[in-house]
Amino acid sequence: MGAQRTTPESATMKRPGLFLPILAFGLSLAIADEGMWRPGQLVGMKTNLGFEPRHLSDLNGHPMNAVISLGGCTASFVSPDGLVITNHHCAYSSIQHNSTPDRNLLQDGFLARRFADELPAAPGSRVMVTVEVTDVTAQMQKDLPAGSQGRKRYQALDDRKKELVAACEKDPGHRCRVAPYSGGLEYELIKQMEIRDVRLVHAPAGSIGRYGGDVDNWMWPRHTGDYSFYRAYVGKDGRPADPSPSNVPYHPKTWLRIARDGVREGSTVLVAGYPGNTNRHRLASEVESTFGWLYPTTTRINRQSLDIIARETASRPEAAILYASTVASLNNRMKNNEGMLAGFPQSNMVARKQKQEADLRAWVESNPGRKTRFGPALDELDALVAKQRARREQDFFYEGQARSAALLGAARTLLRLSIEKEKPDEDREPGYQERDVQRIRERLTRMERTFDAKVDRALWRKGIQEYAAIPAAQHVAPLDAWFGIEGNRVDEARLDERLDAMYAQTKLADTKTRLGLMEATRASLESSQDPFMQLAVALWPADKDLEEKSKDLEGSLEPARARYMEARIAFLKSQGLPLYPDANGTLRVTYGTVKGYRPRDGVVYTPFTMLEGILGKDKGTDPFDAPATQLAAIRERKFNGWEDPALGSVPVNFLSTLDITGGNSGSPTLDAQGDLVGLAFDGNWESIISGWDFQPEVTRCISVDIRYVLWVMQTMHDARELLHELGVDGQTRAARTN
Amino acid sequence: MGAQRTTPESATMKRPGLFLPILAFGLSLAIADEGMWRPGQLVGMKTNLGFEPRHLSDLNGHPMNAVISLGGCTASFVSPDGLVITNHHCAYSSIQHNSTPDRNLLQDGFLARRFADELPAAPGSRVMVTVEVTDVTAQMQKDLPAGSQGRKRYQALDDRKKELVAACEKDPGHRCRVAPYSGGLEYELIKQMEIRDVRLVHAPAGSIGRYGGDVDNWMWPRHTGDYSFYRAYVGKDGRPADPSPSNVPYHPKTWLRIARDGVREGSTVLVAGYPGNTNRHRLASEVESTFGWLYPTTTRINRQSLDIIARETASRPEAAILYASTVASLNNRMKNNEGMLAGFPQSNMVARKQKQEADLRAWVESNPGRKTRFGPALDELDALVAKQRARREQDFFYEGQARSAALLGAARTLLRLSIEKEKPDEDREPGYQERDVQRIRERLTRMERTFDAKVDRALWRKGIQEYAAIPAAQHVAPLDAWFGIEGNRVDEARLDERLDAMYAQTKLADTKTRLGLMEATRASLESSQDPFMQLAVALWPADKDLEEKSKDLEGSLEPARARYMEARIAFLKSQGLPLYPDANGTLRVTYGTVKGYRPRDGVVYTPFTMLEGILGKDKGTDPFDAPATQLAAIRERKFNGWEDPALGSVPVNFLSTLDITGGNSGSPTLDAQGDLVGLAFDGNWESIISGWDFQPEVTRCISVDIRYVLWVMQTMHDARELLHELGVDGQTRAARTN
Repeated sequence: MGAQRTTPESATMKRPGLFLPILAFGLSLAIADEGMWRPGQLVGMKTNLGFEPRHLSDLNGHPMNAVISLGGCTASFVSPDGLVITNHHCAYSSIQHNSTPDRNLLQDGFLARRFADELPAAPGSRVMVTVEVTDVTAQMQKDLPAGSQGRKRYQALDDRKKELVAACEKDPGHRCRVAPYSGGLEYELIKQMEIRDVRLVHAPAGSIGRYGGDVDNWMWPRHTGDYSFYRAYVGKDGRPADPSPSNVPYHPKTWLRIARDGVREGSTVLVAGYPGNTNRHRLASEVESTFGWLYPTTTRINRQSLDIIARETASRPEAAILYASTVASLNNRMKNNEGMLAGFPQSNMVARKQKQEADLRAWVESNPGRKTRFGPALDELDALVAKQRARREQDFFYEGQARSAALLGAARTLLRLSIEKEKPDEDREPGYQERDVQRIRERLTRMERTFDAKVDRALWRKGIQEYAAIPAAQHVAPLDAWFGIEGNRVDEARLDERLDAMYAQTKLADTKTRLGLMEATRASLESSQDPFMQLAVALWPADKDLEEKSKDLEGSLEPARARYMEARIAFLKSQGLPLYPDANGTLRVTYGTVKGYRPRDGVVYTPFTMLEGILGKDKGTDPFDAPATQLAAIRERKFNGWEDPALGSVPVNFLSTLDITGGNSGSPTLDAQGDLVGLAFDGNWESIISGWDFQPEVTRCISVDIRYVLWVMQTMHDARELLHELGVDGQTRAARTN
Repeated sequence: MGAQRTTPESATMKRPGLFLPILAFGLSLAIADEGMWRPGQLVGMKTNLGFEPRHLSDLNGHPMNAVISLGGCTASFVSPDGLVITNHHCAYSSIQHNSTPDRNLLQDGFLARRFADELPAAPGSRVMVTVEVTDVTAQMQKDLPAGSQGRKRYQALDDRKKELVAACEKDPGHRCRVAPYSGGLEYELIKQMEIRDVRLVHAPAGSIGRYGGDVDNWMWPRHTGDYSFYRAYVGKDGRPADPSPSNVPYHPKTWLRIARDGVREGSTVLVAGYPGNTNRHRLASEVESTFGWLYPTTTRINRQSLDIIARETASRPEAAILYASTVASLNNRMKNNEGMLAGFPQSNMVARKQKQEADLRAWVESNPGRKTRFGPALDELDALVAKQRARREQDFFYEGQARSAALLGAARTLLRLSIEKEKPDEDREPGYQERDVQRIRERLTRMERTFDAKVDRALWRKGIQEYAAIPAAQHVAPLDAWFGIEGNRVDEARLDERLDAMYAQTKLADTKTRLGLMEATRASLESSQDPFMQLAVALWPADKDLEEKSKDLEGSLEPARARYMEARIAFLKSQGLPLYPDANGTLRVTYGTVKGYRPRDGVVYTPFTMLEGILGKDKGTDPFDAPATQLAAIRERKFNGWEDPALGSVPVNFLSTLDITGGNSGSPTLDAQGDLVGLAFDGNWESIISGWDFQPEVTRCISVDIRYVLWVMQTMHDARELLHELGVDGQTRAARTN
C-alpha cells in the first residue's frame, strides 16, 4: 500500500504505445479478478498481462492517459483527434438533451459525418484527463494532534484540502481534488485537465444502445449495444475553453488502438476506469443497517416515485422526455437494491464480517503495542457508527425526501451561494467557491431539461408525507411550521393549498430568473417574495445546524476508520496479503479473464452472446424491439467480417471476471496488449451485491464487444468516416491486414 | 415398417440376461434421438447400443419382458420377487389412496420393510406384462370391401376386434386388445398378463418425490426424486388373482439390473415403454384447429376448473385431498397446453406440414398408379377432417363440459351397462362386456376417493354455462330442456334450483348404491327416481345418436388416414427413410444419448443436476421444501458412495435425446448394456410440443438418476431391505465389487 507519485508530464506522444510483450511461460501468473487496484499497487505484482504492469502506473503514458472520466462514467480516447468512446447510457443525457419529439435521437440514434455536424453535449458535460496524482498524506496530517476529532478536525482537514486544491488549480483549465483512501489513512491530490467543450458524435438507435432496457439491466445473457461517441474540443491554443465554434478537436497524448480480432474465452482482460464507491471495508453493523433498513426503504420510495412519474406524465410525452433520465436512474437503483436484498441472505456477509472483525480484534488484543495503537479506535468506530445509525431516518427522510423539490433545491443553492459569497473565497464551503460557480450555473440551467412542475409537486408532496411519518423527535421544526405538520399529522388540504400557492407564485421555474439570482445578495434573498426562497430562508438555521452535526460526526469517524483500516492492512500484511482500498472515484485497474459462470446447478452461462440471440429475444416491442434492418441483417448473416471464427457469428456482449462498480461504466475493456476489446457497461445479477462483497465464482463484468460496436457502425449506420478514424475502415476481415 | 411377431413364450428365465457386447468400433452408428420405434423395426438398424437390437424384439426376453405397463404409465421389474419401480407421480393415486389427514403418505412417504407391511394400491391398479404381439392386419381387413367406409366399416372392424380379443382372452388372467398403427394401415393383437394384486412398497416424502411440483413441471434444471416402488402379487398358482392376503409375490421371467455407476454425458441410453399418443402424422389443417382453437379453449377451461376447485376446497383439507390428483393433472395439462401454444409460432410447423403435404401430393400426382391408389384418399381425408372440425364445439362442450358431473358419469355408465347387458356378450359395446365389468366396478368404487359434491356441483355448473354459450345449433335438446336453456340463455336461478335438488335427492354419491345398480335392469333404471339417472335416461337417445355419427365419421376417417399413411411411408421409403408410427400405447423403444442443450443464446443446460442444486433451489415452502434431514445430509456431503466422480456429487436428474411422451412416465432408462440407469419422468419445456413435432436440437427427456434414487433410499429411509433386494445393498462404492 505504498504511496505513489506519477512522473511529471512527459513529452507528448503521438502514437499509441506498443508494449514489448513479456514472456508468459515459466511465470506464476496471478489472475486477480477481485480488486480495484491503484495503478501503483500493481508494480511488482505478477499478473497475466502481456506487458509490465509498471506501464499502468504511468498516468501520462499509454494506455492510462487515454482513460478519462466523464464524472460518474469512464470513457477513453480512441483517435488522435479527441474522439471519445463511452457507453450509450453515459451519453444518455446528451442524447436526450438534443432530442425533441420531432427529432428523437434517443429513438433513432445519431451520426455526425463531419465535425460541423456534431452536437453540443448536455450542459456541464466534461472530459477529465488525469494528469497528476500526488501523495499529500503528510501535508494533510501535519501538526494535526494525534487524537483530534470532531468538528475541529473536520475543519482543519477541509481547510488543508482547499489550500491544496487552490494551489493546484492555479494551472488554468484544470480541476483538482484531494481524495482520501481507506477513510483518511492516506490522501492523494488528483489533478485533472477539464475539457468543457464536449460534443456528441454518434449514438446508435435506442433499440440497439439500450436493447433490453430495464428488463435486461443486470441480466445475462445480454444483447445491449451500449456505446456512443463524443469528441473533446479545446481552444486553438490547445487548452480547455468554453464551448465555441472556433474550438478545435483536442489531440490527446495517447489513444487506444482497436483490437480487431477481439478476445475469446480465457483471454486476459483489463479494465481501467473511475469506479465511484464501494463499501467492501464496512463493519458488520453498517451492513446490517444498510441491508436491514436503508435498502428496503429506498426501494419502497423509488417504486413510489416511479409510479408518481408514470401517473403524472401519462398523457404528456414532453414531460415524459424530461423525466426519461430520472426514470432510468430510479429503475436502475431500484433493481440494484432489490438484487442486493435478494442476494444478501445467501451471502452470509454479516457473519463473515463479524468473524473478520473478531479475528482482527483478537490479533490486536494479542499484542500490547497493537492494543494501545488500535484498541481505542475500534471501540470508537463502533460507537460512532451507532450514533450515525440513530439519525438515519432524519438523514433519509428530511434531507432526501422533505427537501426533494427541484425548485427548493435551486433556492437553497442560490441562498447558500449568497451566504458563502460574503466570505473570502478560500473560506467558503466547498462547492460554493469561485471554482464551482460555473458548475452551479450549469446545474441551474440543466434543470429546464429535467423539470416539470406537476411531476415535481407530486413527488415532493409524497416526500413531505413520508417525512411527516418518521419519529417526530427527528423532525425539523421550521419545515413542520411551514406546512403545519403536528407530530406525525399532516393536514392534506392545508398541504395542497400551500403547495398550490408555492408553485403558482414562484418564478424559480424560469431559467433566466434562477441564473439572475446567482448575483443576488443574501439580504435581498432573505427578503425575497418567492415562496421557495422563503422556505429555503426559513430552513437555513436548522439546515446549518444539521450540517455542523454532520461535520462533527464525520470529523470523528474519519480518524477512527483510518485507524481501523490501518489495523486491517497490518493484519493482512502479516498474512502476506495486499489490500485494495474502497473505490473513491479515482483511477483504478482491475484485471482478470473472459469467463462464463454457473448461475445455478444445471445451468452454464457462456461468456459470449451473439447476433442470433437478438432474433431469439426480440418481441417487436420496447425494450426488445431491434430495428427491422438489424433483424434482417442478422437473418441474412451479414457479418461483414466482424464474426468470431469460433462462435461463427458476431459476438455482442461478453463476461469477464473483472471487478467493477458504478463509475466504471464506459470503461475501456483492454486485452493483454492494452488494446480496446470492449466497453464495460454492467455487472451480472450475482454481482449486484459486489459493492459490498466480491464473490469470485459468480461476480462478472459485462462488456459490449468492440466487434459488435463496429458491426453496428458499419451495418446499421454506414459510419465509414468514424471507422476510418478508428483505423478499422469497416473492411471485412478478409480485406484487413493486421 | 414390416409387421412383427414375437416368439411364443420361451422358457422362464431366472436371471437377468447379459448380452454379449457387440464391437462398437468400425460401425457407422445411427444415433436416433427422434423415433418411438416398434421393437421389431430396430432389427437390422445400426444403433449405438452395446447389444444387438434384435434382443429388443423378443418381448419375452431380457430386457423387454421386464418393461411393464401400469395403464397410463410404464414401470419395470427390478427383482425376482416382482418388485416394480415407476415414478412417484405414477404411484400418486395409490399413495393418495392410503393417505389420511393423520397418516399423510403424500407428505411423509412410505416404506414397507416387510411384505406384510405393503399397502394395497389404488383400486384398479394393474401391472400389465406384454406376453404376445401378433400382426392381425390380414384378419382385420379380410373380405372388407376396399372402398367400404362409415358406420358399416366401423362396425365390421369393431366386430373383428372383439372376436380377436375374445379368443385371445380365453387364456385366464390376460387382457388383449387390437392396436391400429398408422390409422389402421396395420393392426396388432396385443396380449398382456394382467396382474391385479398390486401393492405399494415404498415412496419417498412428497417433498422429494414431487420436488419442484407444478412450478418445475416441464422445467430444467430439475431436482425431482420421481420414483416409487410397487410389488406385483399373484395367486399361489402363479396366475393373476384378485387381491388376497394369501397371494404371493410374482416371479417375473426377467428383471432389470441396477447400473450402479450410472451414465455420464455422451453415454448411450435407451427407453422402453408405453408412450400413449402422438400426433406427428397429422395434417396441417388439424394442427391449425388444435393450436388455434382446441388448446386455447382447453387452457381457459382448465384454469377455470383449478380456480373453482381451489375456491371450493379452500377451508376443507379433506376435500382438497380428494382433488389433489385432479389438480395435479389439470395443472400438468394446462402448463402443457400453454407451453405448446408458446412454442407453436416459432415451430413453423404448419408451413412445414403444408410443404410436406404438397410434396407428397406432387409425388402421388406424378405417377398414374400412385394417383389412382392414393389420390382420392387424400381428398377424402381433407374433407373428413373438415367435417370433424365443424362439430368441435359440441365435442368439447357438450361431451366434455355439460356432462362433466361425476354422478352423471356414474349414472350414464350404469344405464349403458344395463342396456348392453340386454345383448349377447359378443355384441356389446366395447367397455361394457363381461371382461369390463370388474373395471367398471373399480371405477365406480374409486369415485369415493375423488368426489366431493360441492366441488362436483361447482365444476358442472360452470360446464353447463360454457356449453350454453356455444352455437345453439350444436346444442343437444334434452339437456337444454332439462335445465331450461333457451338459445344461449341460462336462467341461473332455475339452474341452481335444479342442481340443488339433484344433489340433494341423489343416492349415487353412495358407493354401495352405485355398485348395487350394476345389477339393475334397463327398465328399472329408466323408472329410477334418482335425478342423475333420470337425466342419463333423458339424454340417452341423443347420446346414442351422437355416438352413431361419431362412429360413422371414424369408419371413414380410418381408411382415408391409413391410405394417406401408406402413401407417406412409400414416399419416405423412396428416399431411403423409415417411418415410425404415432404412439398408440404399445411397447416402443427410443434410443439416444445423455446430452444437455442450449435453450437460448448465452445459456447452456448441462445434462446433469446434482444434490447441491437442491440447496440452491430450496425455499422452505412447497414445492421447494426438501426435508431438513435431506438438506443437512447434502450440506454435510454425505454421498454414501453414490456420487459421480466427474461431478463430485450425486447426480439427481439427467437429460437425454430420447423421444418420449405421456405414457412413458416411469419408463426404465437403460444404458447401452440394458441396465437401469434412471426413470424417465418428464420432458423439458422445449419438448412440450414434441407430441406434434420433434426438434432434435432442443427436445430432451428428463430422467431421475438411479444413483439419486438409491441415495434417497439409503440416506433418507435406510431402506436396507429394498436395497438388498435390488442387489446393491447400500454399500458405498469403495465396498462394492461389481
